[in-house]
Amino acid sequence: MIKKGLADDLRLKWDRVQQAMSAMGADGCLLSVDVNLYYMTGRIFSGYFYLPVEGEPFFFVKRPNGLSAEQMAYIRKPEEITTVFAERGIKKPGKLLLEADELTYNEYIRLLAVFQPKETENATTLMRTLRSIKTPWEIEQFRISARQHNKTYAEIPSCYRPGMTDLEFQYEIEKRMRQNGSIGLFRAFGSNMDIYMGSILAGDNAQTPSPFDFALGGGGVISLPLGANGTELKNGMAIMVDMAGNYTAYITDMTRVFSVGKLPEQAYKAHTVSILIQQEIEAMAKPGMPCAELYNLSYRIAEQEGLSPYFMGTKQQAKFVGHGIGIQINELPVLTPRSKELLTPNMVFALEPKFVIPGVGAVGIENSFLVTESGLEKLTLAEENIIQL
Amino acid sequence: MIKKGLADDLRLKWDRVQQAMSAMGADGCLLSVDVNLYYMTGRIFSGYFYLPVEGEPFFFVKRPNGLSAEQMAYIRKPEEITTVFAERGIKKPGKLLLEADELTYNEYIRLLAVFQPKETENATTLMRTLRSIKTPWEIEQFRISARQHNKTYAEIPSCYRPGMTDLEFQYEIEKRMRQNGSIGLFRAFGSNMDIYMGSILAGDNAQTPSPFDFALGGGGVISLPLGANGTELKNGMAIMVDMAGNYTAYITDMTRVFSVGKLPEQAYKAHTVSILIQQEIEAMAKPGMPCAELYNLSYRIAEQEGLSPYFMGTKQQAKFVGHGIGIQINELPVLTPRSKELLTPNMVFALEPKFVIPGVGAVGIENSFLVTESGLEKLTLAEENIIQL
Repeated sequence: MIKKGLADDLRLKWDRVQQAMSAMGADGCLLSVDVNLYYMTGRIFSGYFYLPVEGEPFFFVKRPNGLSAEQMAYIRKPEEITTVFAERGIKKPGKLLLEADELTYNEYIRLLAVFQPKETENATTLMRTLRSIKTPWEIEQFRISARQHNKTYAEIPSCYRPGMTDLEFQYEIEKRMRQNGSIGLFRAFGSNMDIYMGSILAGDNAQTPSPFDFALGGGGVISLPLGANGTELKNGMAIMVDMAGNYTAYITDMTRVFSVGKLPEQAYKAHTVSILIQQEIEAMAKPGMPCAELYNLSYRIAEQEGLSPYFMGTKQQAKFVGHGIGIQINELPVLTPRSKELLTPNMVFALEPKFVIPGVGAVGIENSFLVTESGLEKLTLAEENIIQL
Repeated sequence: MIKKGLADDLRLKWDRVQQAMSAMGADGCLLSVDVNLYYMTGRIFSGYFYLPVEGEPFFFVKRPNGLSAEQMAYIRKPEEITTVFAERGIKKPGKLLLEADELTYNEYIRLLAVFQPKETENATTLMRTLRSIKTPWEIEQFRISARQHNKTYAEIPSCYRPGMTDLEFQYEIEKRMRQNGSIGLFRAFGSNMDIYMGSILAGDNAQTPSPFDFALGGGGVISLPLGANGTELKNGMAIMVDMAGNYTAYITDMTRVFSVGKLPEQAYKAHTVSILIQQEIEAMAKPGMPCAELYNLSYRIAEQEGLSPYFMGTKQQAKFVGHGIGIQINELPVLTPRSKELLTPNMVFALEPKFVIPGVGAVGIENSFLVTESGLEKLTLAEENIIQL
């Protein structure tokens, strides 16, 4: 059941979850959501991963056929879990953690009926918090993604042909992403966070508010109201490319800006301010710094430069300047003024100070950073200036 | 808020939901999941759509900015809904329908606290049942999708180059899908139903069981264990292409088989049996026929032909031969022996009798059908024989 080479990494994660459960007085946690299964077992299956506060985990598998492990049972439905517990002498948890922000209501109450725990707490909160501090194996996955992400971005200018639309430009980039190993599927946390491969915003489409809680919007098409909307790429237009770094299960996030011909001076100025914000944060950020301060510092600089009406959108402005990344594109921490988190070694986050200039489009920068013992290490290394196509 | 040209279609859907609520004694239903919002409002937004058993619906919108309608309010959180109800004189529902199979546990209990209904029932069940009977506008969307789906499939032979892998073949097809208008994002109902653009299965990868409840499996890559796995396309191999028809919000489903060189006789025979199953079903199916009978008939023919060990997989066999399609790829009805549903006019479903031949790959057919007053109308019309690349 456990893939070769992953045992040490998984053991490290199990230990961390068990320590956290011990601290909160929990007896066990049951996980079944794809991202948590991948995190804890190195694979996605249909079923449940049960980890008691002490001892070995147990795998309850519905599908696929053909898996094996010592602590494993095939089940058809969750009601069989307690039978297996009884047969194997596993203690039923008094205080059980369940994924309350990910399981559907009916899945959750069905599991409550199965386990009849005295008390429950939210496994989603715990797992998202623990997942925000990456292991050495996870950091290596980010490095692989970043390398391929850089490679794809270097190929972007070759995707452009005069007269094409933002969508046609995107199709070319998508194909290069896939050829460079993108797994395609792009995972996000939360309801109503529909996205496909990333977002390309050309010209005033960058001003269009979207329903989703991503940094910028875009009108999108048909039933996917986000990103490219068929805008013809024209002289004087900024084109923001924010396509996923999903080359491993760990997604890097990177945005670069391209232009058709020259842009108005204001666009270059705002882009320079984005890079300045990034530099200031790179100079100051270290473990212990409040995540809220990264937003506040960014906003202060935008304000000093007279650019706050364009910061993170115009008609709808995102109230964050970055976010943790991992198996999902929107992990913890969130770089928002409301954040209570502190930067901690081995967090990995995307920093994306961006401006939307009416009549031109979106400019700015986004990179993925690893928090080290002393500061930040930038993982995504493509050219940062606006590239004329 | 309501897009032009959609008002009549939406009114028809609202009337159906209101009639169903009246019959079940419900006072109102609150919807917030992307597919239900698109179905009921023609757009996806962040917020809630409230439909009382009688009278006009009300839109509660969090994002995007800039929408307007008479019966609409911007809110930041669901707790504000009851304030709006009081201001506008809207009666609080005693019996409320909520999306119990789609909302997370925490979302659901938060809404319970907001509404404090005397009674609740499952809006997921109701909406999935009603959504299985398509409106004239929806059927037109399927026709558009089918047309573009056919167009893409006609281009598949031109995607092939000797020596390529299943993934490389898929990238070429994906690009043509996008150029023909695929929206990319491919929606499925249920937890652990991860999929990206569809599935291509070459050779023995078709035997690999997957965690997901799709017809066939495939090893996939990294954290997406489904479909193409990097198999090199070789002489004597069957390549099954089951790529999404997501050219409108309504997805057609179609599978065709390609071969490198000639296949063993058994593969052609099994393919012919798939087409025979389809013909038998086309000849017999009409409104009132139990959906279970479509599976049973398919299985009987497979068995008569000595092919049951290969029917819908080998190491893991799917226990259905088709499924409703719509905004999601797996809508109602399900063509399974356990199904209690009857074929009803304006259902749209995919029929996919398939066989997996060890050492060769998957063969068989899948088409999307509309249930008419008298029988079935096939929507997906690409060449059905195995096409040699």
